[in-house]
Amino acid sequence: MTHRLEPLLNPASIALIGASGDAGRIGGMPLDLLTRFGYGGRIFPVNPKYQEVFGLRCWPDIESVPQPVDLAVLAIGAAEVTPMLERCHARGVRAAIVYAAGFAEAGGAGARLQQELEQFAAASGMVVAGPNCMGFANLNTQAHTAFASVFKTAPMQREPGKVSLLTQSGNVCAAVYAIARRLDLPFSQFINTGNEACVDFSAYLDYLAQDPHTEIVLGYLEQLRDGPGFVRACRELERRGKVLIALKAGATDKGAQAVRSHTSALAGDQRVYSAAFRQLGVIEAGDFAQMAQLAGLAMLRHRSAGRRVAVLTMSGALGAILADRFVAAGLDLPELPQDLQATLRGGIPDYGMVGNPVDVTGNVVNNPGFVRAALQALATSDAIDAVVVYAPGYMLDRMAEALADVARAHPRLFAAIDTGAAQCRQALREAGVAVFDDLGLAVSALAPFLAWCEARKRPHDAGAPAPIAPDLPPLPCNEAAARAYLGRFGLADAARVARDADQAVALAGELGYPVALKILSADIAHKTEAGGVALGLADAAAVRAAHARLHAAAARHAPDARLDGMLVQRMERGVAELIVGATRDPVFGPVLTVGLGGVLTELYGDTSHRVLPIGLEEAGRMLRELKVFPLLDGYRGKPRADVAAACRAIVAVGDALLASPGAAEIEVNPLLVKEAGQGVAMLDALILPHSQ
Amino acid sequence: MTHRLEPLLNPASIALIGASGDAGRIGGMPLDLLTRFGYGGRIFPVNPKYQEVFGLRCWPDIESVPQPVDLAVLAIGAAEVTPMLERCHARGVRAAIVYAAGFAEAGGAGARLQQELEQFAAASGMVVAGPNCMGFANLNTQAHTAFASVFKTAPMQREPGKVSLLTQSGNVCAAVYAIARRLDLPFSQFINTGNEACVDFSAYLDYLAQDPHTEIVLGYLEQLRDGPGFVRACRELERRGKVLIALKAGATDKGAQAVRSHTSALAGDQRVYSAAFRQLGVIEAGDFAQMAQLAGLAMLRHRSAGRRVAVLTMSGALGAILADRFVAAGLDLPELPQDLQATLRGGIPDYGMVGNPVDVTGNVVNNPGFVRAALQALATSDAIDAVVVYAPGYMLDRMAEALADVARAHPRLFAAIDTGAAQCRQALREAGVAVFDDLGLAVSALAPFLAWCEARKRPHDAGAPAPIAPDLPPLPCNEAAARAYLGRFGLADAARVARDADQAVALAGELGYPVALKILSADIAHKTEAGGVALGLADAAAVRAAHARLHAAAARHAPDARLDGMLVQRMERGVAELIVGATRDPVFGPVLTVGLGGVLTELYGDTSHRVLPIGLEEAGRMLRELKVFPLLDGYRGKPRADVAAACRAIVAVGDALLASPGAAEIEVNPLLVKEAGQGVAMLDALILPHSQ
Repeated sequence: MTHRLEPLLNPASIALIGASGDAGRIGGMPLDLLTRFGYGGRIFPVNPKYQEVFGLRCWPDIESVPQPVDLAVLAIGAAEVTPMLERCHARGVRAAIVYAAGFAEAGGAGARLQQELEQFAAASGMVVAGPNCMGFANLNTQAHTAFASVFKTAPMQREPGKVSLLTQSGNVCAAVYAIARRLDLPFSQFINTGNEACVDFSAYLDYLAQDPHTEIVLGYLEQLRDGPGFVRACRELERRGKVLIALKAGATDKGAQAVRSHTSALAGDQRVYSAAFRQLGVIEAGDFAQMAQLAGLAMLRHRSAGRRVAVLTMSGALGAILADRFVAAGLDLPELPQDLQATLRGGIPDYGMVGNPVDVTGNVVNNPGFVRAALQALATSDAIDAVVVYAPGYMLDRMAEALADVARAHPRLFAAIDTGAAQCRQALREAGVAVFDDLGLAVSALAPFLAWCEARKRPHDAGAPAPIAPDLPPLPCNEAAARAYLGRFGLADAARVARDADQAVALAGELGYPVALKILSADIAHKTEAGGVALGLADAAAVRAAHARLHAAAARHAPDARLDGMLVQRMERGVAELIVGATRDPVFGPVLTVGLGGVLTELYGDTSHRVLPIGLEEAGRMLRELKVFPLLDGYRGKPRADVAAACRAIVAVGDALLASPGAAEIEVNPLLVKEAGQGVAMLDALILPHSQ
Repeated sequence: MTHRLEPLLNPASIALIGASGDAGRIGGMPLDLLTRFGYGGRIFPVNPKYQEVFGLRCWPDIESVPQPVDLAVLAIGAAEVTPMLERCHARGVRAAIVYAAGFAEAGGAGARLQQELEQFAAASGMVVAGPNCMGFANLNTQAHTAFASVFKTAPMQREPGKVSLLTQSGNVCAAVYAIARRLDLPFSQFINTGNEACVDFSAYLDYLAQDPHTEIVLGYLEQLRDGPGFVRACRELERRGKVLIALKAGATDKGAQAVRSHTSALAGDQRVYSAAFRQLGVIEAGDFAQMAQLAGLAMLRHRSAGRRVAVLTMSGALGAILADRFVAAGLDLPELPQDLQATLRGGIPDYGMVGNPVDVTGNVVNNPGFVRAALQALATSDAIDAVVVYAPGYMLDRMAEALADVARAHPRLFAAIDTGAAQCRQALREAGVAVFDDLGLAVSALAPFLAWCEARKRPHDAGAPAPIAPDLPPLPCNEAAARAYLGRFGLADAARVARDADQAVALAGELGYPVALKILSADIAHKTEAGGVALGLADAAAVRAAHARLHAAAARHAPDARLDGMLVQRMERGVAELIVGATRDPVFGPVLTVGLGGVLTELYGDTSHRVLPIGLEEAGRMLRELKVFPLLDGYRGKPRADVAAACRAIVAVGDALLASPGAAEIEVNPLLVKEAGQGVAMLDALILPHSQ
């Protein structure tokens, strides 16, 4: 079956409506590019003013074009667009690109124009790209429809394309293309989505997942209009061994604000985007040069690689600098095993280094046999995942033959950083070695790429989807009801409800002192602020006094609140208190947040996020991602926490939200994690309804 | 007065001992470079084997050279070096460069050779560079003494040099030179220090501070052998309006370990280096490309600049990405003032943005009058410090004339980031505009440079040096003695010493309950671990019980410790607890560390450091640098802390160490900071002696 975007992205014939003979004009540039680069399909310029443009016969209107065309490009004003699309549709045109601005992004009348366009597309089934887009290019067929001068300034590729661009900005599309072409990356599709009135980012991504000419997608996005579609497309990319490298704008408040002003897009929660990207095997990038370098590395994704890097250099200083940067970027430079060190020591002078970084010293390049043996040993050691050679150009040149041979013979990832102007770069690249001419760029590309290689080995643990639970209490509910409901998902509830002071005393006696007392009311969400919590009550008298005090405080704070009694809970000691919250993200749906409870976590932003569902293994990874994880892990002689129980609780909170379409948010805060083997305790629990 | 390094770095004549006619050999390459680039001084190759090399008469020995020479370059083995230096000295040679390895870095016999060399240099007064160095180049006089092929591959400059390289690695020297020459930076000195047997990094830096041909120094260092000399040289650079851009290896444990293996250098505490760099006006860099870009920006340091950046772009997407990156890198993109927005709105369509980033939209480049007016308005607004234009190449070209004119007319810093291949780059650079071809590089250079420009406006507050105090107690001392001593520096001491339980009860009564009790002993440093602290004692009975319990614990924990009684202290409540510690850094001497007390500060590494002395303003900056500063500043409706009192206490701890040569370390931990107006309280204090 042919993909529905095929006539748009791989058209066999193109009509340009509003054609011009001036290559500097919007109606002329695509014709210039199509003819200049030798598009093989038929081209039909349409404009009653001309007989001929760019040596092509020009047709007075779409009706006079002698055959149905795959794709019409509309270089006409916004108001004329939908009527023209109707005429195109009547003539059998299957897809269209609309350049014109002045639609939804302009508001008011423009929004109405866009609505008309959307209605026409839905009714007719015509595939309409844009409006407000720059047009596309299929670099394999030279089907150019973009008014982008970059194709004239950037060198045109000779080899078949493997990389496709998919951006929510024409300027970004052109900028990334220009930078990536300087690295000689071969492109397939050049797509910028414009207003996405009828075809959105995820739909294009779905095409690229299936496109046999696309292996790597470079994406720029400001918002996703179809989160589930994006997830499906990413899964399909992953299944086919392809990879999306994505830059998401709006990481900071200021950037998010700029995105909003720009397209009225809600940038969404960047931390959720980043979490989803990691779960979906998307590599996240921060700028264009990094995207291009990552694409270059992704061409080598069939080589084995991971976070453990061996660095081989001819200079202790270069080794030290690289070690600093790699470690700071999250990579490992493990100490090399003894047998490997012994092999290296065989050819390295005493003043060199056989640890990691390996400093073979400048003299060793005169001993090509040893260089080959050293690289061979690094290529086959189980203790490392990737090899980086960092050398001044002329020294790299002397090692190049050995490096190329070893890289050809072994499917491990090799990278070379050349601090000079080595002659051997092309030869190394042809042997499958990544070559960088700058340390900063090398680190900024290798760090996320190798982390991605590592993550590929241990796929995201998505757990089992939770079935809908029938007995979500009416919301808002009080804490006891929330606890009871969460109990269904495996979260043990050790609190009890007391109707009055006498019962509170009796329950406290049963549970054992000291206890805590809390007012119970669906109408009071913030119990502490309401003075509704008493901690560390040591005996019956204290419970009785606290009961009276809390009642009075509740009456003062919220006179109309319905009180359902008091919650009695044994005071418990643990190793740490976590916050575990499940919420609904507007793009990705149910998501989970885990952090250490308390004010510092917020100041340090030390939280971990996942799109739900997740399994126990992923919950463990969330905890280990936290900078404060050592606190749970026997920090400074303190006892270890029951991490396994914490993981079960984390999964349970996620499952509870998945099982509860009626709830907007479920939070256990704090979740007390006790010593290993002693489990966890909910110290508070909250289920919030959808806002009205 | 001529600097003593003048004959080394600006020689009028050069002898090369161990001369060769082979440009690929160590004794030949400098002669090749000297003759190739037209060194104007006299050159004396010395080697009995040859009559002539590179068209120059070759002399059999230094004794036959017909005149005293400034500089002898020794391309001979380590063992022959000192005898040859003696012969050179006897013939009036003033300075020498020793290439040979096999000295201190090789240990054993090499270390002895280096000792001999050092003794000779000290006795003779000869200036000896190296050993184990690559040699130098003075690019203004073409005095080449380096065996560095980079001078043949990198393009030679035409203009007079302004930038000097000073590195503790020959490979780094060559690598940075190659990258910086691609940016066409004009160099003066190319210096790599080798083993620094006789001339160390700081001595070279002192020369460069005074060198009229050096405005900017690019430094690479692994360790400083003369911290005070470095500080003096940096002050001199600052006084003369010059700037050092430095890369310090050893930022991570792994990097520090590599530095150690490489040169036996102790990398030192990187946080102290970074603090010292900031205090001394040194710009810290992380890689070579960033160093080169920073040098390019430093050429524009006479323009006014600071952290508040206005971004002008033709694309909302580019603006959003740049905003994300700039803000993440610590810069401000302030909202523009209303009058400026009104000016901009005059020429920007509705779908553009007049906030910051400013999106003038693609159409506006066709309105050069407006572009000029907009740039003019940005160039003169008080609300911003610098202007960054981010545009695709062809659009930048259309704005270039206006941008160059405005930059020429206004001394504000302008930068342009070109996402394409703009034609106008050279013209912009000539007008004083910084031009970047990549966002990532632009951010990595602009962020530290603009922070440096900002810091220049508010110089480091060094306070007043504290005079030596005569009454440091004998160390180790107990907490009461430490508190009393710190009291001299303005830290109020509210704790009292009780000889026995009765007196403890009496003092508690005077101070007011609840109180804390602590054992007092110079022999027990860790009172909590010894069970020697009791908190929150509510009445006399509790004090009496705690007194007995603490006594027993101390006897059990340290039976031989001398007990000096107990410390009685009123329990006090505050807003936050700080750790304030003054220690002695092996390179920079007394340094101060401030952080929030407690385990999370350590996990998050959230501490601030300064080389002492500091004044109150600097203490305030230390607190504001902490990520947890909001806790002191009325976080979430909590009371504000007495920051002024905390600053006085921080300065006092620093002064106390400066005044106490007999103490190795002074720490107040915790320092309780109470509500604004209520001061601080030392909860514990410690003075440590120098280790024996």
